[in-house]
Amino acid sequence: MQFIPGELLAQIDSPADLRRFREEDLGQICQELRQYIVDVVSVNGGHFAASLGTVELTVALHYAFNTPYDQLVWDVGHQAYGHKMLTGRRDIFPTNRIYKGISGFPKRSESEYDTFGVGHSSTSISAALGMAVASELNKHDDRQHIAVIGDGAMTGGMAFEALNHAGMLRSNMLVVLNDNCMSIDPNVGALKEYLTDITTSPTWNRMKDDVWNLLGKLSTFGKSAQGIASKLENAVKSALLQQSNFFESLKFRYFGPVDGHDVNRLVQVMNDLKEIPGPKILHVLTTKGKGYKLAELDQTLWHAPGLFDKTTGEIKKTEKLTPEPPKYQDVFGHTLVELAKADQRIIGVTPAMPSGCSLNIMMKEMPERAFDVGIAEQHAVTFSAGMATQGLIPFCNIYSTFMQRAYDQVIHDVAIQNLHVVFCLDRGGLAGADGPTHHGAYDLAYMRCIPNMVVAAPMNEEELRNMMHTAALRPGPFSIRYPRGNGVMPDWQTPLQQLQIGQGRKVRAGKDMAILSIGHIGNLALKAVELLAETGLEVALYDMRFVKPLDEALLHEVFADFDRIITVEDGCIQGGFGSAVLEFMADHHYHARVKRLGIPDAVIEQGTQPELWAECGYDTNAMVKAALELVDATQVIR
Amino acid sequence: MQFIPGELLAQIDSPADLRRFREEDLGQICQELRQYIVDVVSVNGGHFAASLGTVELTVALHYAFNTPYDQLVWDVGHQAYGHKMLTGRRDIFPTNRIYKGISGFPKRSESEYDTFGVGHSSTSISAALGMAVASELNKHDDRQHIAVIGDGAMTGGMAFEALNHAGMLRSNMLVVLNDNCMSIDPNVGALKEYLTDITTSPTWNRMKDDVWNLLGKLSTFGKSAQGIASKLENAVKSALLQQSNFFESLKFRYFGPVDGHDVNRLVQVMNDLKEIPGPKILHVLTTKGKGYKLAELDQTLWHAPGLFDKTTGEIKKTEKLTPEPPKYQDVFGHTLVELAKADQRIIGVTPAMPSGCSLNIMMKEMPERAFDVGIAEQHAVTFSAGMATQGLIPFCNIYSTFMQRAYDQVIHDVAIQNLHVVFCLDRGGLAGADGPTHHGAYDLAYMRCIPNMVVAAPMNEEELRNMMHTAALRPGPFSIRYPRGNGVMPDWQTPLQQLQIGQGRKVRAGKDMAILSIGHIGNLALKAVELLAETGLEVALYDMRFVKPLDEALLHEVFADFDRIITVEDGCIQGGFGSAVLEFMADHHYHARVKRLGIPDAVIEQGTQPELWAECGYDTNAMVKAALELVDATQVIR
Repeated sequence: MQFIPGELLAQIDSPADLRRFREEDLGQICQELRQYIVDVVSVNGGHFAASLGTVELTVALHYAFNTPYDQLVWDVGHQAYGHKMLTGRRDIFPTNRIYKGISGFPKRSESEYDTFGVGHSSTSISAALGMAVASELNKHDDRQHIAVIGDGAMTGGMAFEALNHAGMLRSNMLVVLNDNCMSIDPNVGALKEYLTDITTSPTWNRMKDDVWNLLGKLSTFGKSAQGIASKLENAVKSALLQQSNFFESLKFRYFGPVDGHDVNRLVQVMNDLKEIPGPKILHVLTTKGKGYKLAELDQTLWHAPGLFDKTTGEIKKTEKLTPEPPKYQDVFGHTLVELAKADQRIIGVTPAMPSGCSLNIMMKEMPERAFDVGIAEQHAVTFSAGMATQGLIPFCNIYSTFMQRAYDQVIHDVAIQNLHVVFCLDRGGLAGADGPTHHGAYDLAYMRCIPNMVVAAPMNEEELRNMMHTAALRPGPFSIRYPRGNGVMPDWQTPLQQLQIGQGRKVRAGKDMAILSIGHIGNLALKAVELLAETGLEVALYDMRFVKPLDEALLHEVFADFDRIITVEDGCIQGGFGSAVLEFMADHHYHARVKRLGIPDAVIEQGTQPELWAECGYDTNAMVKAALELVDATQVIR
Repeated sequence: MQFIPGELLAQIDSPADLRRFREEDLGQICQELRQYIVDVVSVNGGHFAASLGTVELTVALHYAFNTPYDQLVWDVGHQAYGHKMLTGRRDIFPTNRIYKGISGFPKRSESEYDTFGVGHSSTSISAALGMAVASELNKHDDRQHIAVIGDGAMTGGMAFEALNHAGMLRSNMLVVLNDNCMSIDPNVGALKEYLTDITTSPTWNRMKDDVWNLLGKLSTFGKSAQGIASKLENAVKSALLQQSNFFESLKFRYFGPVDGHDVNRLVQVMNDLKEIPGPKILHVLTTKGKGYKLAELDQTLWHAPGLFDKTTGEIKKTEKLTPEPPKYQDVFGHTLVELAKADQRIIGVTPAMPSGCSLNIMMKEMPERAFDVGIAEQHAVTFSAGMATQGLIPFCNIYSTFMQRAYDQVIHDVAIQNLHVVFCLDRGGLAGADGPTHHGAYDLAYMRCIPNMVVAAPMNEEELRNMMHTAALRPGPFSIRYPRGNGVMPDWQTPLQQLQIGQGRKVRAGKDMAILSIGHIGNLALKAVELLAETGLEVALYDMRFVKPLDEALLHEVFADFDRIITVEDGCIQGGFGSAVLEFMADHHYHARVKRLGIPDAVIEQGTQPELWAECGYDTNAMVKAALELVDATQVIR
């Protein structure tokens, strides 16, 4: 489908083109850019509301600053569609988030304007500070360094670490705080309340001016009053100037708040700020979804709405004639409520992903026992650990890729102390269109080496439910990982059954070869086994359920019966499930040809999950191929 | 050795005993406690200055609060020696940090007074908040929750995440900010400067009072002045009360600063604070090393000085007749300076460990190119990544165990973007007396699964130097891990040689069996091989140098020549180096008996490194035993 940019936008293939326009034209350019985003995203899908909210900011930044010489770092990157369209990628933007297309996030390999690859939150200030320090050392004194970070991302601890360092270094950098009170869900935390205070009460700058004016008037009241005024002024100055603002107390100069939808005002302020050395923060107020009324009204729904009719705002759903299997995340969400109703000790915790992981179901039903802690994975884990010391059973739901943020807390605060915290890792395995920053590729490997940790992955909805039930009954750390997307059981509300920890199951008998699978990818293995049966090959399938502890009894059976084995996992093959099987084999002196299928040792780009499973060699066809190769293998065992 | 507590201290076997004393006695109790710490640590070693600084705080906390019902969480735990002595562990304190003795850190399994195990920094607010929320749900409304955190630990991002969440929840908790301007090295960052501002300028509370007083006087100047005063009051109130303090802007009530060595004042303030609901912060000023003059003067040296003469303050050094091999950390420190002198692009980065990792050598010689970023591992990594985008080559030195804190940043900000950052992981392997929280057990496993990452470990000083040299020459992420303690080469200043990435070396030829080692533990393997030679067993030894990429050529040679192989690593055997060897074996259809030696899947406690290597089965004797068992193994290969 062809998208027609507006008259001015059509003339902009780079920020240099943008900068040739007059300031008076910027309003129209913003309007055209916003329309173009609506046109493309309504048809192609992708993140929506965030980029609508930053249209004016994007235009102002590229107009005021000398990109790409000046270094512009977008935090998270959901909001950078406008940036991509202004930096030479307008015409290829329809390939956004598609296999082999352009990334939904800024990406260094894609453009020199994408100074730092993002996807995870709260990295921009650290990266921009690194750039600023490098410019000092490289004697690029005229270079500007700008981090654009949302108020949600500002709650992530590493943003604070970076502010603390930047405030000390005094390097030349500008942090643009894009304050829209939202993460994907509404932003939470004391800082958000504080920012709201600044915004809704007489603003800080305004108040400062008022105080100065009033102090000036006082001097008309004679000498004693003047003396008092002077003392007061000193006291108030030290309060207001040194300690009066969260950011100023971290030695940033604070400016704002500024209307983030007034492009000309933004340009003016940014031009002024260029002249001011040292670390600065510009507080910009924006509305997520700005300019598309429905998105402004339900910002969570319109964060990434899928396809929609841009005129009516109707979000398109594909008609289903038969009942669909549910999303795994919803099975988690509903099952947690079910468990929590039966056991008062059960608690839900999410770092800023209530709608992404479906903890919003519990937050609605039992708000006092379900916690959104903000974009704060580290805190989410240790907060859970603290609750566990008091006999509660927290289910801490963190996407596999984001759990990397809390790895130390999992080890240090939960596992070493053997506390009863259940980790539910959503988006385990290749995550699809979000691409390399979001794949949950490593969790089986990085969880498996942690003592006391149970590492489980369900093949279907019923197993997810049973694993959650089992995890609640077994003291100690327990992790359950499951993929993005839908399961396989339309009738998923099966009765809860306690599993034996570390017990797998034989799904299909066979005699020629065995496939050992972990997690949802076992469903593809089952199809492969069925296809292989048509070729006359009888392949056994084992759903191992647990990477740790392994089902040793079952493995003894497998290694006794088979000398050709395939392991398959939706995770990295270096150190993952297949390696655990190899360790078992070596420890018990078995000997078989073992072919491990899984994510290879490479950065895997975006695509649909089936496209990526195929690329990585573990979709159904690839499994069939691997099995046929293995059975045909003439190479003798050395 | 017997240690004699003072008269009052001798009567205290629990905080309940302490609470039976009158407030007037607390001064003497503090004095006796301090003396006891000096007595024990001077003879037994351990952390020193931190606990001296918190003597009064410790006594006041246990006196004012109802421990263990009230939950007291110490951050990091270096400073909790006094706490241990007051909570029933005075007489066993001489076993501190010794194999099978008590831990140098609070530890849940050791005492009900140790509510949360610590060691890594910045966890206490999250944990205490979890406890506070649990108490609400459990209807323990009278329970107090206290986190004691240093100003250094406060720079860690997760502390901020917890403040942000706590400020929103309004749960009943007290954060005691133990402000001594120190981590192990002097604390850095904007927050530290801010805290100093509060402390040295007229304090916030004081100033607030002054302003109120002055405003009161203004009302004597007639109506117009009154009107102005009233407006002023509103403006100033909103400034001072809502936004005037870093912590108040996060919705904590701020109290202080208070003299942390005035035990009676502390008790009084704490008793007052018990009555105030919601999140509160008490800013306490202490001096690290307080009461031991030399420690006050050089707090870094006296953080953990080893043994010393408590009267003269002379730190004991064991006399060496021959030149000693250097510490690995010093080889790192000197070699980095050497490399940086030759290449302007090389930068040093440490998160608050300049003396621990010896980056202080570079900080002294080229301060503009060596950065202590504070206790902020996440920021350290992404800050390095930002510099790398500008063509610099950061060497980011983080202890193996602390690198767990920055795992996501290593993957997301460095590896996915294939940026040239060199990670030097000090304290890789079992760390010794610091125990389970500090062992560098997992890094080979968690680094090995990351794409683009080189994973190297030197067997000696020369290899460390050559690996650093090689890493500087090879674009892309590179990790080098080495152990705590001394190397093996008195003459370590060898000429720098570039290594072939992924190339190991044959150290010793043999014919009966091969040992494949990674890192420093190869030296023990060499001894084992020598001992085995005396029994007539000819064992080959290979120093693999790289876990990733593996030296496949060398491994083909090994598997062609040997059917009995031992792998040995000072790291977890689940997913580590040995597993990488098994993966190679399976992928190439080799077949051998492989015995993997390394850290088993368990929480390993404290002890000297040799004690722990023995316990874990990979010291020299254990390797000899494993080799003899393997050669004797009658069990046929199945």
